[in-house]
Amino acid sequence: MTDAIPDLSTRRFGFLCYPGFEELDLIGPWEMATMWSSYARGPQCLTIGPTTDPMRCAKGLAVVPAESLATCPALDYLLVPGGFAAFEVMQDPALLGFVKRQARGARAVLSVCTGSFILHAAGLLEGRRATTHWKALPRLRALPGVTVEEARWTRDGMIWTSAGVSAGIDLLLGFIATEAGEAAASQVQWNAEYYPDSRAYGAAHRDTAAPGYLRAAE
Amino acid sequence: MTDAIPDLSTRRFGFLCYPGFEELDLIGPWEMATMWSSYARGPQCLTIGPTTDPMRCAKGLAVVPAESLATCPALDYLLVPGGFAAFEVMQDPALLGFVKRQARGARAVLSVCTGSFILHAAGLLEGRRATTHWKALPRLRALPGVTVEEARWTRDGMIWTSAGVSAGIDLLLGFIATEAGEAAASQVQWNAEYYPDSRAYGAAHRDTAAPGYLRAAE
Repeated sequence: MTDAIPDLSTRRFGFLCYPGFEELDLIGPWEMATMWSSYARGPQCLTIGPTTDPMRCAKGLAVVPAESLATCPALDYLLVPGGFAAFEVMQDPALLGFVKRQARGARAVLSVCTGSFILHAAGLLEGRRATTHWKALPRLRALPGVTVEEARWTRDGMIWTSAGVSAGIDLLLGFIATEAGEAAASQVQWNAEYYPDSRAYGAAHRDTAAPGYLRAAE
Repeated sequence: MTDAIPDLSTRRFGFLCYPGFEELDLIGPWEMATMWSSYARGPQCLTIGPTTDPMRCAKGLAVVPAESLATCPALDYLLVPGGFAAFEVMQDPALLGFVKRQARGARAVLSVCTGSFILHAAGLLEGRRATTHWKALPRLRALPGVTVEEARWTRDGMIWTSAGVSAGIDLLLGFIATEAGEAAASQVQWNAEYYPDSRAYGAAHRDTAAPGYLRAAE
């Protein structure tokens, strides 16, 4: 690629942690974003929690956020993961307030899986296209103001959302390609060796609940 | 699928953490294995560290292992992640001793990325086929006793290894399909919504260092 990779190393990319977030929702994108920092002049990446106390994720991994809601600096980019606990966060004024405040000054807000429900509760999906985990598509469709798209990931202005769990990795590569160019995304993908073997096991994905992007690929 | 999913819920799957391990190397497989537990009668999953003190991963995420080397019970499966720090672990008698001891009673030992160098230092790759991150293939080839294969992942008896970082996700699905059947792997993939969009960005992967499996896909 001949396009020069822009230096975005003074920007900040925050990853919001809350008790019960789904591990890969956050850490798939985290790996892509930190590879961007390491190999393609990407932003500084940091984790943020309600406090900096250790917390348990959905599947039991314990993580310790680097910053609290109170100490977190202004962010250029904010990513919100999902998990069943996202439905509780929809009622958490401190976390929602943080997302709203950061969104006002941010260049982009991204969600993975049911993280889109948190964006909705923060008022960020009003009049926007968005997606979520296949299991939660009917529930997202029932909310007002948002247009649900059955895509691997979506972009609508500054709002980026992805399908379930692993889809956050694809979202981040698309985001990096848009924000910093194809050559930057290429370096990230190469260093993370993200060239999946794309095998579909068994028949679970032929369920009638399968999202449009998956049915189209069959 | 008509094959019944076996109940492996009394088995234990350990994920070895050490300072500087690469985040996605461990947490990609962790997500697949814990989805296996949640949706397809898979094993109990636990993280293990030198101690249960918090540690920093390669890209700065802080995690807290659930068990220490001293308290970890006998494991049926053990996964060893990579990262540049793997080359230091190759000289760590306590960690290598743990891997050797657990391997003696385990059904399978798996590595991701440069985790294969730790398996080699523990004597587990003698006379075996194995792989690693594309960047480390020449270095693995220089070690005695191992036959390097340029594959997304490999299996040779009880030893399973994968290419770099994200390849551990593909490894785990292949491992689950073998250990518990195609229907179990199908449920894991479906719940993790792991149907990557398989786009290759830019041209970095056309480098002469690209592994065989990637050149073959071009």
